[in-house]
Amino acid sequence: MIYADNAATTRMSDTAISTMTSVMKEMYGNPSSLYSLGQEAKEIIEKAREDVASVIGAEPREIIFTSGGSEADNQAIRIGAEIGKKNGKKHIISTAFEHHAVLHTLKRLEAEGFEVTLLDVHENGIVRPEEVEAAIRDDTCLVTIMFANNEIGTIQPIREIGAVCREKKVLFHTDAVQAIGHVPVNVVDDNIDMLSSSAHKYHGPKGVGFLYVKKGIRITNLIEGGAQEQGRRAGTENVPGIAAMAAAIKEASEHMEENAKVMTAMRDKLIEGLSRIPHSALNGDATRRLPGNVNFCFEGIEGESLLLLLDDKGIAASSGSACTSGSLDPSHVLLAIGRVHDVAHGSLRLTVGEDITEEQIDYIIKSVKEVVEYLRSFSPVWRDLCSGKAQFIL
Amino acid sequence: MIYADNAATTRMSDTAISTMTSVMKEMYGNPSSLYSLGQEAKEIIEKAREDVASVIGAEPREIIFTSGGSEADNQAIRIGAEIGKKNGKKHIISTAFEHHAVLHTLKRLEAEGFEVTLLDVHENGIVRPEEVEAAIRDDTCLVTIMFANNEIGTIQPIREIGAVCREKKVLFHTDAVQAIGHVPVNVVDDNIDMLSSSAHKYHGPKGVGFLYVKKGIRITNLIEGGAQEQGRRAGTENVPGIAAMAAAIKEASEHMEENAKVMTAMRDKLIEGLSRIPHSALNGDATRRLPGNVNFCFEGIEGESLLLLLDDKGIAASSGSACTSGSLDPSHVLLAIGRVHDVAHGSLRLTVGEDITEEQIDYIIKSVKEVVEYLRSFSPVWRDLCSGKAQFIL
Repeated sequence: MIYADNAATTRMSDTAISTMTSVMKEMYGNPSSLYSLGQEAKEIIEKAREDVASVIGAEPREIIFTSGGSEADNQAIRIGAEIGKKNGKKHIISTAFEHHAVLHTLKRLEAEGFEVTLLDVHENGIVRPEEVEAAIRDDTCLVTIMFANNEIGTIQPIREIGAVCREKKVLFHTDAVQAIGHVPVNVVDDNIDMLSSSAHKYHGPKGVGFLYVKKGIRITNLIEGGAQEQGRRAGTENVPGIAAMAAAIKEASEHMEENAKVMTAMRDKLIEGLSRIPHSALNGDATRRLPGNVNFCFEGIEGESLLLLLDDKGIAASSGSACTSGSLDPSHVLLAIGRVHDVAHGSLRLTVGEDITEEQIDYIIKSVKEVVEYLRSFSPVWRDLCSGKAQFIL
Repeated sequence: MIYADNAATTRMSDTAISTMTSVMKEMYGNPSSLYSLGQEAKEIIEKAREDVASVIGAEPREIIFTSGGSEADNQAIRIGAEIGKKNGKKHIISTAFEHHAVLHTLKRLEAEGFEVTLLDVHENGIVRPEEVEAAIRDDTCLVTIMFANNEIGTIQPIREIGAVCREKKVLFHTDAVQAIGHVPVNVVDDNIDMLSSSAHKYHGPKGVGFLYVKKGIRITNLIEGGAQEQGRRAGTENVPGIAAMAAAIKEASEHMEENAKVMTAMRDKLIEGLSRIPHSALNGDATRRLPGNVNFCFEGIEGESLLLLLDDKGIAASSGSACTSGSLDPSHVLLAIGRVHDVAHGSLRLTVGEDITEEQIDYIIKSVKEVVEYLRSFSPVWRDLCSGKAQFIL
């Protein structure tokens, strides 16, 4: 099988698996316990906190371990909203193509009396810092804009957006779930106040992530209870998961440059090959995107059938976010970059890993071409387009 | 080492470890993905949901996987509060000795305008159903009472409390984190509307748990985002953790009777032995308690020193909840059953597993005796008690 859905989740690295396994077997103490077994577990967590912090340029105490990216996003936005409420500020700025962990939390806040401005991401899927600046009002308490989009992989000018927020004294959160481990992220240089990350996106385990919160920011809990994580996130710590996440983020960070080089080359080869399919178009900026991300629309076909036929050919791909599969609506991300409904329905996301080979890329191009042709051969939409009854868009 | 802190966390069983490891290695697909690897992961989760549901007498769709017991408690209470709010009912009944995941969430709700009644748990640490009944008002939206206490192990008359709630048409949640896997729990027979559980308390992994919500109850999310768990809990599912939890709960359930028999015998032997230490007292009812739970107060000493010296002797124990260690306050549970501050400070919780041996019990008794005597030998409080300057309580 060719696994080309690394944005949905990644295979755990051998290092992450072995860390997880050994901690699980040997270090089963509760890190809050006073005896040696507990204190050993505590040390593992604190070492992991240092490792994670060091990769993103944070201090260990600025890292809160969570159950994943969604929890981190939820908590970050609640933190911003709570501070806003205390200061009588109830306006939040975000974008139309955020992950649903952000968008749905913002919906909840709207019901609680907050006002939300969703910025345009333009055709290339990139937010403009000057539009962030223009949107900031006196009552803006939070700007939350993702580092890299989960569907089309476009990388945002986070440093510039962060600078705008710093200047305007507005908290800035970024959902960096797709970015961490794949592109350089430094919370100091990038002017980030809060950042969410999920381990399973960089060959770590599922069910664990972290939230970075710059020191001095007043933290609101999402999960109340015990005094774990300095009272900022209750629940017995997932010691093996946290240790494995730290191992994975270190590994990803150490090999980032070389991996990105390979993946970018493969990505560009894939983009080039798929562009030759008639009436197709790449979604999102061609270069300001994640190393492994390719996202295309093919006119006249339906994404779901494409995926199932590719699966038959041994290729694991997706039409967009895994988190929204099962929904019949077209991707909100593709709509946000201006794709019309029909075109957005015919989308394909291929997110390759660093272990992808040229032969595999060739095989993917060949397979997608065949499947698109096959599906078009009995698509009424395609017939209408070809006969001139309908107009080609791409 | 003798591990006698199973209420804090348990060692993962071999079955749970091997399940976790094999799923982690081989089934890394995202369960929301359409291709085979994703669908295989989805099947694992749905099989786990059936297994978990079947152990507690629920239907699979009534199980929501969470990151643990604290998250489940937080969500359950939010569900109850949200339904209450919609119906103009803002009164919640609980007890003074709940876990902090419950108590702190209730504190938050008080700040949001809810009124909370905390019932007395009496000297024996057991809530009286007639007092629950008496406390229910027209505006009561939720009763949340733990199945078994995490410090003193007392088992509550859940079925009777549930019956009262059913009759009065009030939602009933129980934090069953300490009970599941150790004593029989059946949500139908026990009249339970919502129930929280955590895998690492029954030899499953840390970082995973579940919330049972009776069908028909309108669910509020704690974590918003993707459509996972039928839109009731966002975030990529912790597939290996969920599979390992299911393996652990099945195993615990299959061996519950035999394990309980062994543990109860060992518990009673331990209680008998420790009772012979002068000026000591068992905390909580002697028989209506969890099979493995022993909790004592020793006058004239300080719990933390006791633990550290027992650790030196190779015994892992605790003074109370692991979740509150680091706090200098005495246990809120011991205060709730009427222990005065000084006495509550000298507490020791020993929670034995099914693998404990008689020899180990003898060794624990001997060691605790020695350490208590040693600590008393230079305790000014003990001197005052012996000289009559202060009055013995126990």
